[in-house]
Amino acid sequence: MPIQFTDQKQEFNKRTSNTGHRSLPHSISQSSTDSYGSVCSDSSEDGSSPRDKPRRTSKGLSDFCIKNIKQAEFGRREIIIAQQEMPALMILRKGAGGEKPLAGAQVVGCTHITAQTAVLIETLSVLGAQCRWAACNIFSTQNAVAAALAEGGTPVFAWRGESEDDFWWCIDRCVGAETWQPNMIMDDGGDLTHWIHKKHPSLFKNIKGIVEESVTGIYRLYQMSKAGRLCVPAINVNDSVTKQKFDNLYCCKESILDGLKRTTDIMFGGKQVVVCGYGEVGKGCCAALKALGAVVYVTEVDPICALQACMDGFRVNKLSEVARQVDMVVTCTGNKSVVRREHLDRMKDGCILCNMGHSSTEIDLVSLRTAELRWERMRPQVDHVIWPDGKRIVLLAEGRLLNLSCSTVPSFVLSITATTQALALIELYSAPEGRYKQDVYLLPKKMDEYVASLHLPTFDAHLSEVTDEQAKYLGISKHGPFKPNDYR
Amino acid sequence: MPIQFTDQKQEFNKRTSNTGHRSLPHSISQSSTDSYGSVCSDSSEDGSSPRDKPRRTSKGLSDFCIKNIKQAEFGRREIIIAQQEMPALMILRKGAGGEKPLAGAQVVGCTHITAQTAVLIETLSVLGAQCRWAACNIFSTQNAVAAALAEGGTPVFAWRGESEDDFWWCIDRCVGAETWQPNMIMDDGGDLTHWIHKKHPSLFKNIKGIVEESVTGIYRLYQMSKAGRLCVPAINVNDSVTKQKFDNLYCCKESILDGLKRTTDIMFGGKQVVVCGYGEVGKGCCAALKALGAVVYVTEVDPICALQACMDGFRVNKLSEVARQVDMVVTCTGNKSVVRREHLDRMKDGCILCNMGHSSTEIDLVSLRTAELRWERMRPQVDHVIWPDGKRIVLLAEGRLLNLSCSTVPSFVLSITATTQALALIELYSAPEGRYKQDVYLLPKKMDEYVASLHLPTFDAHLSEVTDEQAKYLGISKHGPFKPNDYR
Amino acid sequence: MPIQFTDQKQEFNKRTSNTGHRSLPHSISQSSTDSYGSVCSDSSEDGSSPRDKPRRTSKGLSDFCIKNIKQAEFGRREIIIAQQEMPALMILRKGAGGEKPLAGAQVVGCTHITAQTAVLIETLSVLGAQCRWAACNIFSTQNAVAAALAEGGTPVFAWRGESEDDFWWCIDRCVGAETWQPNMIMDDGGDLTHWIHKKHPSLFKNIKGIVEESVTGIYRLYQMSKAGRLCVPAINVNDSVTKQKFDNLYCCKESILDGLKRTTDIMFGGKQVVVCGYGEVGKGCCAALKALGAVVYVTEVDPICALQACMDGFRVNKLSEVARQVDMVVTCTGNKSVVRREHLDRMKDGCILCNMGHSSTEIDLVSLRTAELRWERMRPQVDHVIWPDGKRIVLLAEGRLLNLSCSTVPSFVLSITATTQALALIELYSAPEGRYKQDVYLLPKKMDEYVASLHLPTFDAHLSEVTDEQAKYLGISKHGPFKPNDYR
Amino acid sequence: MPIQFTDQKQEFNKRTSNTGHRSLPHSISQSSTDSYGSVCSDSSEDGSSPRDKPRRTSKGLSDFCIKNIKQAEFGRREIIIAQQEMPALMILRKGAGGEKPLAGAQVVGCTHITAQTAVLIETLSVLGAQCRWAACNIFSTQNAVAAALAEGGTPVFAWRGESEDDFWWCIDRCVGAETWQPNMIMDDGGDLTHWIHKKHPSLFKNIKGIVEESVTGIYRLYQMSKAGRLCVPAINVNDSVTKQKFDNLYCCKESILDGLKRTTDIMFGGKQVVVCGYGEVGKGCCAALKALGAVVYVTEVDPICALQACMDGFRVNKLSEVARQVDMVVTCTGNKSVVRREHLDRMKDGCILCNMGHSSTEIDLVSLRTAELRWERMRPQVDHVIWPDGKRIVLLAEGRLLNLSCSTVPSFVLSITATTQALALIELYSAPEGRYKQDVYLLPKKMDEYVASLHLPTFDAHLSEVTDEQAKYLGISKHGPFKPNDYR
Repeated sequence: MPIQFTDQKQEFNKRTSNTGHRSLPHSISQSSTDSYGSVCSDSSEDGSSPRDKPRRTSKGLSDFCIKNIKQAEFGRREIIIAQQEMPALMILRKGAGGEKPLAGAQVVGCTHITAQTAVLIETLSVLGAQCRWAACNIFSTQNAVAAALAEGGTPVFAWRGESEDDFWWCIDRCVGAETWQPNMIMDDGGDLTHWIHKKHPSLFKNIKGIVEESVTGIYRLYQMSKAGRLCVPAINVNDSVTKQKFDNLYCCKESILDGLKRTTDIMFGGKQVVVCGYGEVGKGCCAALKALGAVVYVTEVDPICALQACMDGFRVNKLSEVARQVDMVVTCTGNKSVVRREHLDRMKDGCILCNMGHSSTEIDLVSLRTAELRWERMRPQVDHVIWPDGKRIVLLAEGRLLNLSCSTVPSFVLSITATTQALALIELYSAPEGRYKQDVYLLPKKMDEYVASLHLPTFDAHLSEVTDEQAKYLGISKHGPFKPNDYR
Repeated sequence: MPIQFTDQKQEFNKRTSNTGHRSLPHSISQSSTDSYGSVCSDSSEDGSSPRDKPRRTSKGLSDFCIKNIKQAEFGRREIIIAQQEMPALMILRKGAGGEKPLAGAQVVGCTHITAQTAVLIETLSVLGAQCRWAACNIFSTQNAVAAALAEGGTPVFAWRGESEDDFWWCIDRCVGAETWQPNMIMDDGGDLTHWIHKKHPSLFKNIKGIVEESVTGIYRLYQMSKAGRLCVPAINVNDSVTKQKFDNLYCCKESILDGLKRTTDIMFGGKQVVVCGYGEVGKGCCAALKALGAVVYVTEVDPICALQACMDGFRVNKLSEVARQVDMVVTCTGNKSVVRREHLDRMKDGCILCNMGHSSTEIDLVSLRTAELRWERMRPQVDHVIWPDGKRIVLLAEGRLLNLSCSTVPSFVLSITATTQALALIELYSAPEGRYKQDVYLLPKKMDEYVASLHLPTFDAHLSEVTDEQAKYLGISKHGPFKPNDYR
Repeated sequence: MPIQFTDQKQEFNKRTSNTGHRSLPHSISQSSTDSYGSVCSDSSEDGSSPRDKPRRTSKGLSDFCIKNIKQAEFGRREIIIAQQEMPALMILRKGAGGEKPLAGAQVVGCTHITAQTAVLIETLSVLGAQCRWAACNIFSTQNAVAAALAEGGTPVFAWRGESEDDFWWCIDRCVGAETWQPNMIMDDGGDLTHWIHKKHPSLFKNIKGIVEESVTGIYRLYQMSKAGRLCVPAINVNDSVTKQKFDNLYCCKESILDGLKRTTDIMFGGKQVVVCGYGEVGKGCCAALKALGAVVYVTEVDPICALQACMDGFRVNKLSEVARQVDMVVTCTGNKSVVRREHLDRMKDGCILCNMGHSSTEIDLVSLRTAELRWERMRPQVDHVIWPDGKRIVLLAEGRLLNLSCSTVPSFVLSITATTQALALIELYSAPEGRYKQDVYLLPKKMDEYVASLHLPTFDAHLSEVTDEQAKYLGISKHGPFKPNDYR
Repeated sequence: MPIQFTDQKQEFNKRTSNTGHRSLPHSISQSSTDSYGSVCSDSSEDGSSPRDKPRRTSKGLSDFCIKNIKQAEFGRREIIIAQQEMPALMILRKGAGGEKPLAGAQVVGCTHITAQTAVLIETLSVLGAQCRWAACNIFSTQNAVAAALAEGGTPVFAWRGESEDDFWWCIDRCVGAETWQPNMIMDDGGDLTHWIHKKHPSLFKNIKGIVEESVTGIYRLYQMSKAGRLCVPAINVNDSVTKQKFDNLYCCKESILDGLKRTTDIMFGGKQVVVCGYGEVGKGCCAALKALGAVVYVTEVDPICALQACMDGFRVNKLSEVARQVDMVVTCTGNKSVVRREHLDRMKDGCILCNMGHSSTEIDLVSLRTAELRWERMRPQVDHVIWPDGKRIVLLAEGRLLNLSCSTVPSFVLSITATTQALALIELYSAPEGRYKQDVYLLPKKMDEYVASLHLPTFDAHLSEVTDEQAKYLGISKHGPFKPNDYR
C-alpha cells in the first residue's frame, strides 16, 4: 500500500472518495466566495431542479444545464476579478496570437466550477478547444459562474446542490453529445474518467490523454496503470513541484488566517495555538500565525520536521501536553484521528478547533457525536460542542478543510495549477505519436519552470541569465532545467 | 485649532460630524459580522418602521424599540461569542461578587449596538446599574444583538437603517423615561450629550459625569469646557494609553488583512503595496502585510516616522513615484486628500485602493465621481472605477474605513476600550464630591495599568513584582504606576 | 527624587557615577572594535605613561597627549569606515559650504574617544570650531583613533587605561591652554563641567553653553539648575526623541545578537531565552531573538508593557518560573538585582547570562562572588561561574552592558546622537542673546525632525510634502513640526 | 559531467581543489573563534617549525606534532564550550554505557582541527576507537585545540600555517604508525584517501570503509567508483537530509549576520541588500537580513526559486539593475563569476561585497586585480578596493566564504554533521560482511531521523507517537522512516 503524505499536499479540489455513500464525498466545500455573493440570490430561487426546466442563453443556446442563467452577469464579474490574479493563463491566451494549439481539441472536463476554473476553461477555448464541462463536486459549484460560462458559450452542466443522480447525469450529458466526441479528458478526482471507462469505453479510441490533478484521481490512475487497464496516457499534475510547493505552503499560509477570521473574528495576537504537523501545510500555518503574534506550538512524529520546527522557533510537544493551555488547535498532518477525545477532554473552554490538513479525517468526530455532548450551531460552519460542565469547543467546518469551507483560495495560487493543467493538455494533445505510452507521467521539470516563469511578470520580477561560461561550469543548459528533477 | 493626529487613533465608533447633512455622518459602518449572520434574515423582514409596531419580550416587557425581537436567540449567541474575547469585563462581573459598585446608577448610553457593546452594557447591569441605550450610528446596529439586549431586559432603542428622525427619536426615548432619570452618561460621538444639553438641560442636575470615547465627542467636550458650558465632569477614554496603543497598532495589524481578504480574496505574497503614513495604524498595517510576504512601500511627511519606516525595512518614497508599480494602496495618514486624481491616473490596472486611516477623507473621491470614469459595483463594498482606456481601480468601501466596513473588529481589542469605559463610569459615579470638577479628565495612569492587568489572564501572563529594594532604587511605588504619565 | 527609567535609554557613553571610587566608574567599556584591531599592537607597546614622553605629529605639533602617534594611519582608516555610516555629519560638513557656523567657537569636549566621536569632532572643526578633547572614560579610548585625531591637528589628551590621576590631568590640560579659552562645552557624563565649575569657575564668563548627552550628566545639570548653580544654558541631548527611539530600539535589536555571537558563538535557532523587561531595549532584543528563531519569554512588572509583549507573541512569566528551562537570560529593565541568586540557583547547566539594560546593577553579582562558587575565565568577557555540583553559568562581561563590552555599536545609530550634539552646539553658540536662560533645554521637536531628515538620504528615502490644504486641515505648518511635542 | 548545485550545500570544510597549486586550496579559513583567543599567543611564539622540536604532553606522550602543547588548557576550555552545543555526541557517549561499538576500530582522520571536530574525535575514542588525526586544511587548525587533543592522548599532527610539504608529512605520520594500522578512514576533502591510495595501497586490505563529508571528497569517490578503483565501501555524509537542510539554511541564516557584523560593524536596519541566488543558502541569508530590517533584493536564474522569492516578499531583479542602489551584495549561487566587473563598476561608494555560496569563484576577483584599482587592507579580512574616482568597494575575505573566514560556525549545526559522521563510522565498522559493497552509499533515511531525534532534547522537544491505527492508515512503520527517501 502506498504512503500518502497528504500533509504535503492540500487538495483544493478533492472529493473524499472510496466510500460507499455517493452523497457523502461531495459534501466538502461550500466556498465562501460564493456565499459572499450568491447565497442570498440562491435562496430567492425556487427549489425546482434545473433538469426540469430547459433554459436558453441570450444568444439562444440551450446545450447546458445550470441553475439560473440570469446570474450570468454577476458570474462574469467574478470571472473578471479572477482573471486579474491569473496572469499566466492570460499570457497563454495572448501568446497564442493567431495560433490555436488546441484547434481540434474536444475537451470534456470535470472540475469544480468556480471563477478560477472558468478562467481555465475559457483559456482552453481561446486556444482553440471545444469544451464541455461538469462539476466534480455536488456542493462546490458557483451557480453564477456556471451561468456566465453557459452564457459565454460553454456547454456546462452543473449546479450547487446536485443530487447523486444529478451528478452522474451531468457527467453523462457532458460526455455524450451526439454531434461531439471528446478527444481529451481533464479530470479532478477521477469520476469522469471512471464514468467513461465504465459507460462509454469506446470513446477512448479517440482520446489522446487525460490530465488529472487530485491525489485521489492520481491514485486511481496508478491503480489502473498497475492493473494494465489504463488505455491512454495521463499526466499527473498534482505532483508537479509548483503545485506542491505553492499550493501547500503559500496558500495555506494565507488561508489559515482568513478562515479563522471569517468564522470566529478571533484576534491572533498573544493567542496560544498548537499546529499538529510541520510539513509544508504546517509550515505555512505556523509562519502566518507567528507573524500575527500568536504563540505557536507544534506536534510532530517525524524527528526531522520536529527539528526544523525547533530551529524555526516553535516549541515541539505532544498534543496531550499542550491541549490544556491552547486557544486554538489546527491539524495539518495528513493523518487520521490526530485529535482524539482524550485531547478534546483536556482542551479549555472556548478552544477553537479546525483542520487544514487532509479530508475530514484528522479530528475524531465520532468521539464528539455522543449523547453527553451537545452541539449548537452558532454561525454557518461554526459549531459549539458543549461538555456537560458547560465547556465549549468551537469546531469549524465540522472538521472538514477550513480553507476550502470557510475562506477563499486565492486565485493566484490556483493560477499555477490551472496553468499546469492547460500546458499538460496542450502537451498531450500535440505530442507526436509515441512520445507518451499508456502510463502516468509527471510534467518535465522544464515545464514546471515554464509555469513559474509565466507568473513572474505579476511581481515585475526579472530573471538573470546564465552565461555560457556559467552553464559550462554547472554542466547545465542555459535555458534550464536548472535543478535536478528531485530538487525540492 | 487643535491638531488632530488621527492617524494615531483609528476610531471604531466614529461618526464623521461637523457637517450640515445629518444623514451623511451616520453612513460609516456596515459591520460584516452582521452581514455574515443577519443580513439575510433582515431582508426577509418587512420594511415597516419599528416605531410603528410595539413589540414585547418573552417576559412581557415593552419598553424598547428594535427591529425584530425574534432574532434575540441569534443575537445572544453572538454575545456569548464576544464574551469569550472580553475577559476583563467578565472578571469585573465576577470580581464584584455581591458588591454592586454601580448600585443606584442610572446610565443612559449612546454607542454602536454590537455584540461587544452588549457585553459592556450587561456588565454595567451586573454591577448594579440601570441602563437605557440608543445607537450612535444609524447603520451600525446589529439588529439581533439589539433584540437579545431587549429580551435580556435592557431598554434599547435602535435598529439598522434608522432615519435621521428615528435617530433622535431613539435618543429621546432613552433619555426621557417618565419614571427614570439618568445620573450617568456614556456617550460615543457626543450626540447624546448634545441632545440632553439642548433638550433636557435640567437633567444635568442629577448627572454625575460623562464618559466619552470618540475623537469627535472629546473634541466637543473640550470646546464646551473652554466655553465654560461643560456642567459636569467628563472622562476622556479615547486618549488613554491602552486605547491608543492597542486599538491602533494591534487591531489594524490584524484587520487590514481581514478586510482585504473578505473583499478581494487577494493573495498577499509578493504583492507590492504602498502604505501612506507610518503612525501607529500604518505601523500595524505594514507589519502585517510584510509578514504575509508583501513588498511594502511607505509614504510619510514626518521625517522621524519616515526614519522609523526605513529602520524597519520599508522603502520610503512619494506616492507619485510608486503609484505606477503597486498592486494596493492603503491610506493611514489621518489627513485628507492623500490619494488624489494625479495618483489615481498613474495606478495600474487592477490596483486595489482602501482607507484604514481616518473617516472618508483620505481618498479624494470627488475626483473619481466624474463623467469620464465609470463605476461598477462588483461585490458589496467593492467598486471598480473604470478609466476610459479600460483600466480598473478596485475601490473598497467607497473610501470609508476598511476595517469598519469590510472586516470585523476583534472583540478582544474592543474589550480594552470597553473595560476602560466601565472603570471610568465607576470612577465618576463613586468619586467623592469634589474630586472631579466640570472639566475633561484622562484616566490616571494607574487605571490604564489596571485595565491592562485585567487582560493578562487571557494570555496566562504573570507579572513580576517589584521588590522593596527595587522600588526604592527606582523611586516608584511597588504597585505602580510604573511609568511617567507621558510614557508611550 | 526623579524616576529614572533607564530601560528606556541605553546609554552608550555612560559612566556609572556617584561612587566613592573614581577608578570603578570608568571600567565599563572595552570596545571590541578596538580589540579587533589594536589590542595586539597595544600589547607591543611599552608600559610607560604617555604623560612622560612628549610626542610630535608628522607636522611637528606637540599639543596633545596620547599613547602612540604611529597608530595614526590605522586610526584614520577606522575613522574613514565610520564616516561611511555617519551621513548626516558629512552632509553638515558639505552643507556648510564656505560658511562656518562655528567660526570663533572654542569647544572643549569630554566624550569617549572612538572613531564615531572622531567624526563628530572633526565635523565641528570643519564647521569652524577649534576643539580640545579629553576622554570621559578611562578604558574606552581607541588609541589609534586618538592618534589619528592628534595627527589631524586636534589637541587630544586621552589613552586607554588612564589612571584616576591621568583622567583629571587630561581634562585639565584640555581646559587650561594658556593661549586658548573655551566658549562652549560638550560633555558626556558631566565630569568636564564639574571640573571647570570646581577648578576654573571664571571660565564660565566666556562660555555660551553646555551640550550634555548622558543620563548621569543630565541628572547633574538638573540638580545644579534646581540649586541655582547652573550659570550657563545647557541642552539635554539625551532625551531627544531620535536618541531615545533609535538608540534603544534599533541599536539593541542588532547588538544583542552581535554581542552574544562574538562571545559565545551560540546558535539562536530554537534556543529558549528570557528577556527581563519589555521597554524599548527589551522590545528590540525580543524582536531580534525571535526573528532568528529563538523561543522568547518576557518578564515585566508593568502590565501595559506586559500586554504589549503578549500581543507581540511572547509568553510573559516570572523569572523564577522560567529560569529552569531557558538557555539564555537577558536583562533590560533599568532596575537593580533583577537576576538574583534564587534565580541563578535554578538555571540549568550552560545557561548564558547577560545584561543589556542599565549599568552593571541588573544582575546581583555579589551573590555570585561567594566561596562555594568557582569562577573560570573562558575567553575575554566570558566567565563560567561553577556551582559545587559542576553546573556552569556563562556570565558575559561580568554583568556590565553586553553591547558596549562585547559587540560594536553601529556607527549609524551613533550618527543620530552625534548630529544632535552638533546641532545643539550650533544652536547654543549662534542663538541670539536671551533665547536661552541658565537652564536645561530640550532640542525643539523641529530640530529632532531635522536630524531625522538628514539621515534619510542614506536609505534613498523621499519625504512627501504636506499640501496647503492638508496643512490647514491638520492645523500645522507645512514644514513641521508634524507631531505634538509629547508624541512618541 | 555532473551538475554541482553547491548553492544548496555550503561546505564548512571544503578545500577548493582541482587546481595545480597545492598551496592555494588550503587558504580558505582562518576561523575567527581562534583569532578571538589565540592569535595573540600565536604571535608570541617563535617561527620555528613544529616538525623540528619534538614536544611532550604532561603525561610524557610524544606521538604527536603540534604548535605548542602549553596551549592545551585554553584549547580544553574551547572544547568544553563546544560540548555544550553538541548534545547528540554527548548522548552517544553516555548511551554507549559500558558498550564500546568502536572497540577495535583504528580510525585515521583528516578533517579541520577545531573545537567541534575535537568533540567528535574524542567521542569516537569514548566509543572504543583508537584515533590518529591530521588537518585537511593548512590554515584552519586551532592550535590550542590541537594541543588539548594531544594532551588528552590523541596523536594529532597539525598546526596552523603548515606548508604544502608539512601538510602531506602530517598525513603520512598519521597513517603510517609502525605499531598501528588503520581500519577506518574519516576524510574531509579526499586528500587522506588519495594519499593512502597512492602511497599505502596495501592498507586497504584492513580498511572496512570510508566516511567522507565534503562535496569535493564525494566527487572524487564517485569518480573512483565509476572507474572501478574504489576498493572499500564509503558513506556519503554530505548529501544526508540533515546536513543539507540544516547546514545550509539555518547555519547561513545566522552566520551571514555574524560575518558582516564582525568585519564591518554595519547596521542592517534600512540597508538595501541584493542576495544572488535563492537556494537554501540564499533563503537563509534573505530571511535573516529581512528580519533585521534590511530591504532585500534577489537575483535568480531559476524561475521556480525566483517565484519562491517573490512569494516570500523579495523583489527579484538582475544584478545589473540593482547594483547601483544596494549597500551590500551577497553571493549564494554556487556558480562562478556571478559578480563581474560590469556590476562592480556600477556599485556605489562603500558597497560591501561578500560571498556565502561556493568556494571563491562567485566574485570575479581577477577583474579587480587590475592596475587602475587600488587595494587597501582596512582590517583583517576587509579590503577596500578603490576606483580611480575614489569609489571604494568593501570586499570581505577576498571573496572567500564569509562565514568560514569571518564568523564562527555554530557548534550546534556542526553537531548534526559530526553525529552523522560518527554514526556512519559505526555503521560501516559494525556492518555484517556483505551489507556494503565497494560503492558510495547514503545513510538510510532512518539514520537521518535518528540524528535529528538526538538533537531534540536540546530544545526540550517531545515527539508524538504514531498509533497503530495511524501507521496502518499511512502504510508506514510506527518507528519510521516517516517520509519517502526523496522527501525534502
